[in-house]
Amino acid sequence: MIRAYLDWNASAPLRVEAREAMVAALDQLGNPSSIHAEGRAARALIERSRAKVAEAAGAMGADVVFVSGATEAAALACAKRDLVCAPVEHEAVLAWCHSELSVDSHGAVEVGEPARTALQAANSETGVIQPLPEGLAVVDATQAFGKVPFAFDWSGVDMAFVSAHKIGGPKGIGALFIRRGLDVTARLKGGGQEMGRRAGTENVAAIAGFGAAAEAAGRDLADGVWQEVAARRDALEERLMAEAPGLICAGKGADRLPNTTLMIAPGWKGETQVMQMDLAGFAVSAGSACSSGKLRGSGVLAAMGFDETAAGSALRVSIGPATTDEELGRFAETWLGQWVKHRARAA
Amino acid sequence: MIRAYLDWNASAPLRVEAREAMVAALDQLGNPSSIHAEGRAARALIERSRAKVAEAAGAMGADVVFVSGATEAAALACAKRDLVCAPVEHEAVLAWCHSELSVDSHGAVEVGEPARTALQAANSETGVIQPLPEGLAVVDATQAFGKVPFAFDWSGVDMAFVSAHKIGGPKGIGALFIRRGLDVTARLKGGGQEMGRRAGTENVAAIAGFGAAAEAAGRDLADGVWQEVAARRDALEERLMAEAPGLICAGKGADRLPNTTLMIAPGWKGETQVMQMDLAGFAVSAGSACSSGKLRGSGVLAAMGFDETAAGSALRVSIGPATTDEELGRFAETWLGQWVKHRARAA
Repeated sequence: MIRAYLDWNASAPLRVEAREAMVAALDQLGNPSSIHAEGRAARALIERSRAKVAEAAGAMGADVVFVSGATEAAALACAKRDLVCAPVEHEAVLAWCHSELSVDSHGAVEVGEPARTALQAANSETGVIQPLPEGLAVVDATQAFGKVPFAFDWSGVDMAFVSAHKIGGPKGIGALFIRRGLDVTARLKGGGQEMGRRAGTENVAAIAGFGAAAEAAGRDLADGVWQEVAARRDALEERLMAEAPGLICAGKGADRLPNTTLMIAPGWKGETQVMQMDLAGFAVSAGSACSSGKLRGSGVLAAMGFDETAAGSALRVSIGPATTDEELGRFAETWLGQWVKHRARAA
Repeated sequence: MIRAYLDWNASAPLRVEAREAMVAALDQLGNPSSIHAEGRAARALIERSRAKVAEAAGAMGADVVFVSGATEAAALACAKRDLVCAPVEHEAVLAWCHSELSVDSHGAVEVGEPARTALQAANSETGVIQPLPEGLAVVDATQAFGKVPFAFDWSGVDMAFVSAHKIGGPKGIGALFIRRGLDVTARLKGGGQEMGRRAGTENVAAIAGFGAAAEAAGRDLADGVWQEVAARRDALEERLMAEAPGLICAGKGADRLPNTTLMIAPGWKGETQVMQMDLAGFAVSAGSACSSGKLRGSGVLAAMGFDETAAGSALRVSIGPATTDEELGRFAETWLGQWVKHRARAA
């Protein structure tokens, strides 16, 4: 069976450029902390990647700290800082912040004190984009980075973080951007790596892949690739809503990522839909991957005011530049067929 | 210039098996937390690697937690537990423990209360192997793993950790072994990965490489490959000591790793030697890579009773199965030539 991968927000396919950079980096001998030629070459590879990631994120004026992913970056940025956030944040942020901010029905977070707030640039489930007030403490740019313009240096925020595998880089690497002059308390200690902010031998191959992915992602964004993605996503939504009366696309009225659609067919469990679609050859999700298998309704949708039935009936389709009209057509056909059957059973 | 890489303790060259496994894993779509086929395939890859790492470490009865490396494993195992250790431990352990145990002139640590002690299985600088008393709280097996027999399940210790890139796996991945029934406090939160002990999307490619490297390392060890390495190392030491009177090989009287020699030529600064050898085509080290560039004497040697001059004059040569007699002969020739020049300048 030819499968269609429509779960880019969970993890994007590795870009060719990232793959090549990683394969080349695998042959780089040496520990980047070593002072011999092999060590210096590994170090140089890291610094070239750092510059590429900084450029793609408009963070040339910031300190860029490589970490093992967005979850580690969130901990480094948010832990023990008494920050507040909204329940729509990713659990890696919720774990460290007081979840007390309100969210409106379009998914917009009401920020009171930016300097005490952690805020996502875009939501992983709905794709809803948040305006970023000046002076935010922490921005989770994981889902926005690479899909919509984001320039750390111009955003006026203190810190922001991203993950490589959401932009076609490898899993296991991410970056925290820190406005110059600010600092974080290292959580990994015992080596001077990353200017003392993150000890441990650097993941050279993953960093090389991240740099290459960031460069390619920046180019794609400038080339308008995601506008085509948005057109394809919009066409899918229109067809599904036309042919499946009662279907809701969460956050459709709001500014959203170009690639994300969260469809709600109230009463048809999201997890069931995921499994049915999987059997039919489509990789989709019932929410963020990290909470997959939990079989509970989305906290994001609850925060937006959806009831439990609706929140438990969501299916996320998240696509990318490689997604074709043919794949989406096939998906719509299959999903609508299953929807008709579900309706017949439920009737 | 043909270079010789003699710094395996800082980072071993990537094994062919690990490289192949990583390259194959790069093409694995999907987030291992996703429940669709792609996610399940990524998950299966992780679990196969986990079994391989467990088998290589004799830890089939233990919980194996994948982390970003030995530094993160040390933090997870040691932080906030009021543990004690000796000053010969790696800084990633020293960062979390009270350094108060004594060390004898052969590098042996005097353990008082095993249940409160973090102890290295082997020292990264001298290669000195520690007997592991029953009931140790934490064992840093980073340098011992793969080079000498180590079986977690038989060791009677609570926890132990290793790093992939010291055994020919990739940088950026390691494992913490936890005796079943015990637990650790997660330091990365916000996802249920690794049985709730380490949140964050798993580094699938690195884990795949780690599994392949562990399998190959176990085979090498069983095949007696490291006995040949030891013979080569011993021959090097004998030649250097014969031709350079006054040269000391630290810990030579003790049980040591088969591949490590820490040579002390008192008065000839280790960092200077590293740079001279580097220019001549040899990658060696003045101590552990993580403290490279600090230009201070080795704390390990100070703990063993060496004076400041001696401790600042150490050169570590650490080799592996791929190291040839020709490389070591060339190294001895070059080093002895520089040693004669140094003696002439110093006279």
